Amino acid sequence: MSDFAIDFAKGQGLIPAIVQDWKTGEVLMVAYMNAASWAKTLETGKACFWSRSRKKLWLKGETSGHVQIIKEIYLDCDQDALLLKVEQVGGAACHTGYRSCFYRQIVNGQTQVIGKRIFDPKEVYGE
Amino acid sequence: MSDFAIDFAKGQGLIPAIVQDWKTGEVLMVAYMNAASWAKTLETGKACFWSRSRKKLWLKGETSGHVQIIKEIYLDCDQDALLLKVEQVGGAACHTGYRSCFYRQIVNGQTQVIGKRIFDPKEVYGE
Repeated sequence: MSDFAIDFAKGQGLIPAIVQDWKTGEVLMVAYMNAASWAKTLETGKACFWSRSRKKLWLKGETSGHVQIIKEIYLDCDQDALLLKVEQVGGAACHTGYRSCFYRQIVNGQTQVIGKRIFDPKEVYGE
Repeated sequence: MSDFAIDFAKGQGLIPAIVQDWKTGEVLMVAYMNAASWAKTLETGKACFWSRSRKKLWLKGETSGHVQIIKEIYLDCDQDALLLKVEQVGGAACHTGYRSCFYRQIVNGQTQVIGKRIFDPKEVYGE
């Protein structure tokens, strides 16, 4: 038995899971998990989320092949957030082809693209 | 004028803001922002969130003095999450006294404390 219980109730069934590159520490993305996606993540060893837009379980990388292999998992003080350290297969976490979803910096109220584009989304997802 | 608009609607007025140490890359915490706390963050240069439990604006560190000075801000692909790189005044982000809220690793279904305790919460917040 586990010595902890994740508090899914506070976020109406969903908690944020931050995904960080296990070697560089770069934050790649944040997504949501419900109890089923958390169970699936533990079962498969790959990051599985709940897609709020598609309203379904979302095995990250199931279309692109860019899955996230779980290396380490951390729990926060309130048991309502997770930090996943992963190996990002294919090098890019973002559906736009950038390595990180946080590929834009906000400077003086404007965005500046600072991220690295790894793939062309048209080639991966089709047009 | 800004060249972006944060999508607060998707999360019923709240978006997650990940806080990362600007030098080490350590993820310190994740909290929520509404439009008012985002405006306050920009205005003050210090991280300001929305406390879901207290239902009020929350200038991080207002009680403990452990404010977070904003160094860099990044926006994600869907405009519904932020990444803040900060200087953590006092060295600890977590109200439990640990440097990071993610001070416990989950290993084989059990938690292991791996974080570093910086202060005694009783001394900072009283008993």
